[in-house]
Amino acid sequence: MTAQPRLDRLTRKPDRESSSRALLDALLDEVLVGTLSTVLDGQPWVVPLLFARDGDRVLLHGSTGAGALRHVASGAPAAFCVMSFDALVVAESTFESSANYRSSVIRGRLANLSGDDGWAALNRLSDRLLPGRNAEVRPMRDKEVAATVALALPILDGQWIYKERTGPPGEPAPGEDLTGVWTGVVPFRTVRGPAQPAPWCDPALPPPPSVQRLLGEV
Amino acid sequence: MTAQPRLDRLTRKPDRESSSRALLDALLDEVLVGTLSTVLDGQPWVVPLLFARDGDRVLLHGSTGAGALRHVASGAPAAFCVMSFDALVVAESTFESSANYRSSVIRGRLANLSGDDGWAALNRLSDRLLPGRNAEVRPMRDKEVAATVALALPILDGQWIYKERTGPPGEPAPGEDLTGVWTGVVPFRTVRGPAQPAPWCDPALPPPPSVQRLLGEV
Repeated sequence: MTAQPRLDRLTRKPDRESSSRALLDALLDEVLVGTLSTVLDGQPWVVPLLFARDGDRVLLHGSTGAGALRHVASGAPAAFCVMSFDALVVAESTFESSANYRSSVIRGRLANLSGDDGWAALNRLSDRLLPGRNAEVRPMRDKEVAATVALALPILDGQWIYKERTGPPGEPAPGEDLTGVWTGVVPFRTVRGPAQPAPWCDPALPPPPSVQRLLGEV
Repeated sequence: MTAQPRLDRLTRKPDRESSSRALLDALLDEVLVGTLSTVLDGQPWVVPLLFARDGDRVLLHGSTGAGALRHVASGAPAAFCVMSFDALVVAESTFESSANYRSSVIRGRLANLSGDDGWAALNRLSDRLLPGRNAEVRPMRDKEVAATVALALPILDGQWIYKERTGPPGEPAPGEDLTGVWTGVVPFRTVRGPAQPAPWCDPALPPPPSVQRLLGEV
């Protein structure tokens, strides 16, 4: 037996899963931070981390002093979650109210990157977080690379899920009394700026092109 | 032996852990979504969820159809992570660059709320997500409460951590050539609105007081 299609709810756009790598990549390329989960002594362990997508992998980094990161680097199973909260969905009842969002979970085992791979990954991460900054400052030093763990989580078919909800609330069910009841969505978005120079920064210096581009000023 | 204080870095404000419940509560009361991690068959499992702090507990909810939520509800160990990305910290090198953020991880076992507790928790959740909305719409129906899992994670001393980084980049180390190098922070913040009525909403209806307050319009 197949499930009956809910024709009465066709205009609703419920939470939906997608197998589109383009949607996954768009989310990973927009959001700067995710949460890395693993299992440590049978217990769940989680930490928020900056990340960058690099083709078919997610790059992460942290201090070599972070014990649990070393655990994950050694091959423990990991799940990396990225989410964007896009809107409150205000329906005719609290039960039907919801949120618009995009989210993904990528499962796999992290690889520890070293040597030239590690160097390239750290440069990719910093260029992702503030595109163009690498070219504005001195290169990394060997001791800085040595003090940093660079990790890669592969994005493999069947090892990730992507879910989103978009659009207005569902059309109210027949029989709901909607007199005077407003329904709709309240979008949430992230804005950046204004740039704040450090106290010891020459006040005559304008923000560099990397920061101006991030702020949409060039 | 105690660790030597890093007197040369006193003006830096590195990542720091705090035991302040006020800081934890402020974060939990600002952010609407977190990630719930648990262990399922030895593997990490994670899902983003809306939440509400209610005194010394975090309330969560989901559909009764969500299998892993039922697993967590049955007493599996859980870790709930909440994070706010507050700024990019642009230093004189990519190595010293960083992010300002506030984050917490709360560990424990979730309790499944039922009866009046479940009803109250669901009302608290919807009132947290859009304060005042409960009073603008009809009450929940029994079948709606029955279709929802309401969970509570206690906030217990010793079972949570709070970390943040605030302020400018660290003062550059002596010997760095800073000629022409801008340093500072680029704040990120969330803005809301404008409200978008659903296609079937009477266009003459203004957004309700709950939405107007959320948008700072009253």
